Amino acid sequence: MFDLHHPDLGLQLDARRMGLSASDLVDPALDAALDHLVELEAGEPVNTDEGRRVGHFWLRAPERAPGGLEEVIAATRDAVLDFADRIRAEGRFDTVLQVGIGGSALGPQLLVDALPGDGLHVAFLDNTDPEGIDRVLAGLDLARTLVLVVSKSGGTRETRNGMLEVRAACDRAGLGWAERAVAVTCADSKLDRLAREEGWLARFPLWDWVGGRFSVTSAVGLLPAALAGRDVAGLLAGAAAMDRWCRAPREANPAALLALAWHRAAEGAARRAMVVLPYRDRLVLWPRYLQQLIMESLGKRLDRQGRVVHQGLTVYGNKGSTDQHATVQQLREGPDDHFLCFLLTLEDGRSAAPLEVEPGVTSGDYLLGFALGTRRALSEAGRRSLTLVLERLDAPTLGALIALHERAVGIYAHLVGVNAYHQPGVEAGKLAAAEVLELMARLAAGKDPGSAPEDDVELVRARLQRSN
Amino acid sequence: MFDLHHPDLGLQLDARRMGLSASDLVDPALDAALDHLVELEAGEPVNTDEGRRVGHFWLRAPERAPGGLEEVIAATRDAVLDFADRIRAEGRFDTVLQVGIGGSALGPQLLVDALPGDGLHVAFLDNTDPEGIDRVLAGLDLARTLVLVVSKSGGTRETRNGMLEVRAACDRAGLGWAERAVAVTCADSKLDRLAREEGWLARFPLWDWVGGRFSVTSAVGLLPAALAGRDVAGLLAGAAAMDRWCRAPREANPAALLALAWHRAAEGAARRAMVVLPYRDRLVLWPRYLQQLIMESLGKRLDRQGRVVHQGLTVYGNKGSTDQHATVQQLREGPDDHFLCFLLTLEDGRSAAPLEVEPGVTSGDYLLGFALGTRRALSEAGRRSLTLVLERLDAPTLGALIALHERAVGIYAHLVGVNAYHQPGVEAGKLAAAEVLELMARLAAGKDPGSAPEDDVELVRARLQRSN
Repeated sequence: MFDLHHPDLGLQLDARRMGLSASDLVDPALDAALDHLVELEAGEPVNTDEGRRVGHFWLRAPERAPGGLEEVIAATRDAVLDFADRIRAEGRFDTVLQVGIGGSALGPQLLVDALPGDGLHVAFLDNTDPEGIDRVLAGLDLARTLVLVVSKSGGTRETRNGMLEVRAACDRAGLGWAERAVAVTCADSKLDRLAREEGWLARFPLWDWVGGRFSVTSAVGLLPAALAGRDVAGLLAGAAAMDRWCRAPREANPAALLALAWHRAAEGAARRAMVVLPYRDRLVLWPRYLQQLIMESLGKRLDRQGRVVHQGLTVYGNKGSTDQHATVQQLREGPDDHFLCFLLTLEDGRSAAPLEVEPGVTSGDYLLGFALGTRRALSEAGRRSLTLVLERLDAPTLGALIALHERAVGIYAHLVGVNAYHQPGVEAGKLAAAEVLELMARLAAGKDPGSAPEDDVELVRARLQRSN
Repeated sequence: MFDLHHPDLGLQLDARRMGLSASDLVDPALDAALDHLVELEAGEPVNTDEGRRVGHFWLRAPERAPGGLEEVIAATRDAVLDFADRIRAEGRFDTVLQVGIGGSALGPQLLVDALPGDGLHVAFLDNTDPEGIDRVLAGLDLARTLVLVVSKSGGTRETRNGMLEVRAACDRAGLGWAERAVAVTCADSKLDRLAREEGWLARFPLWDWVGGRFSVTSAVGLLPAALAGRDVAGLLAGAAAMDRWCRAPREANPAALLALAWHRAAEGAARRAMVVLPYRDRLVLWPRYLQQLIMESLGKRLDRQGRVVHQGLTVYGNKGSTDQHATVQQLREGPDDHFLCFLLTLEDGRSAAPLEVEPGVTSGDYLLGFALGTRRALSEAGRRSLTLVLERLDAPTLGALIALHERAVGIYAHLVGVNAYHQPGVEAGKLAAAEVLELMARLAAGKDPGSAPEDDVELVRARLQRSN
């Protein structure tokens, strides 16, 4: 009942160690949440405060998209794949530099790191740290580099800065910009207009019905993955297969089971964090990907009725068995404020005959041994755990994992009554950052600091002193 | 009072946004904790249940070590530096491969990533994932690679497996092993004996008074850092300077202030997690380093009197401003279950004249703007934050940061009554892992599974089926 298998995908979701009882599954709220997803998929504008639809599901099943969208989704996907094929065939570039942050970086980074491929090398500028930018650029041959500038709104400052820095580096190297620049952004955004006016090599559209953290199966993720020779078709097929599986009734529905397990462990109120431990080096970014997907979706002050609820679900983790040497001491002996999500693969992904590190025992046997041993030791200490088992790690299973968690997030949000598809809390920081830049300008010009906080003024003064 | 500066180090610890009151600082428990550190530094065997002393402080001030240790510490440090100089001068190797996990990997990874240098390239095997091992080895020219095998006990399985895998790869390539292998381990450990018998290129000692997570200023961190051309002398000098500062009376003592701030925010009972946000790409491993240092030290079931306390302090985070697009939505709007630790630098670390992304504004100005803006937005939402400010990021300041947090951990542990220097909770997982390997052997031999948990048996059977 709490252990679901999908034989074709080679994927198992095992929630038997989450302390669920049969009565949990008959919660009518779960049916309501599933109905809500059906409405979403049908194109109802449920992201009400922004008046938008939510349709990342359609990216892997264009035929389910509402009126008119099917063609543009399929045509965009085909254009992305054709462009990637053409670039790879031409041989003019050997590297892709993706300039983007948040949803425009983490998903693509995950795809490139987790999947094998023999295409272009992919690098990322995912911050506005000058030294970090210099370090990435120093590792590239810009003359052989294609630059993707990815920003849904076209106005993200970190991405704008990264673009200007790369562009300046191209200028210094005497390299043309438009001939190597590609924009991925919503039609008619500032970025889109710039790319059009300057005649950039290509432009690919995003849409307001795909949130940044849900955009990995849009051009945001597909374009760099296809250029890098990753199995993009497999990724989409796996995500589509999971979407289909997640339309099952609640007792056979893995997204419902996953959301329910989170909900009971977190007591519907962020009481326990989810520690994500993939036992596979290639999946070290998976916990960070989930951290963004889940915390930005569920961390909300207000519910849909405007009541103050301070919801959320904290997510962290890196990889097993490495993390056993960092966090497991506390996870086993410290407070009962978390549950684990183990991610295991049955196949090692090693092509050559495995080395026996002891008679009949391989490094991969140890990896599984540590995973199951840690699970058992944590269970004995009363700590809950989920286990996701992949027969093999490949593009379809990664696509399926992504789709599973996207849907579980939607269900969880409905169970606790919040909107998973907006992020009202990030504006305040951006506005305050603009005020800090204004403060810098005032102080640099010798003006008084106005009403800025004292510690901000101290730091800005100290910075100005050092740069003079 | 809650804002301490060290002008020579160029380091500021600002706890003014942590909601402390003057009465917090006069807590007599704080004096007791500082006295405890004095005893530790004098060589009292305070790690009582293992009967060991705790002396990582002596690594950067050998003259303070108790009887007989001064010479061996100084001689080991000199031998490490001489060896690194010789290897670099010889030019036989261009890469170092460090095989180690936990305390034998994360500290060295931090040093190499956070500091600049022009020495050998450093790669790490920090897991027993066969595919991960293959991926690292595929990126190396083994003929030009020096291999450091680092395990305090000499018995860590992941490290043993990694060593056997590299060794097998050398065999396949017809490369000698002993001539490129270096052991860093306690005298007369299994690893030490193997290295001695086989005549490895070098052996460097560890000591039972340096815990793995406190070992970054031992040969564990110094050797790869020196080979990589990092400023090891500066690192040690910065750590020593911080150790000296941290012997100040409580009101001028940054480690006391840091521990106190953690303690009040966590309510002495792991009520709030620390989210660590370094605004600098080079420090992206800093939160993971702290996660290991803090969670393994403070996550304890029993206090020193044997009472069940389930203590801990959860730590997670990656880097700013990137994380603002992942976690800040929840950190601002979700539950009040965390506090932030911002880490900022006043200098950008950029050598060339900075690009102006707007008139008079640079990418680095934006980075500081986002940090201060986020701090302000979180303060407005009632969330506490610490700020650590470095004038510049270099080896002395990194050494100082490390020493500061090592000492704060010791003080915090004393405040809540737990032993920071053991890790009794990790044994259970290792024992259970051994049982899983035994189960694999039983099932592979066609025997019955005995009393193993049903879900373990299912998974082991499934794995065996796939590998046949």
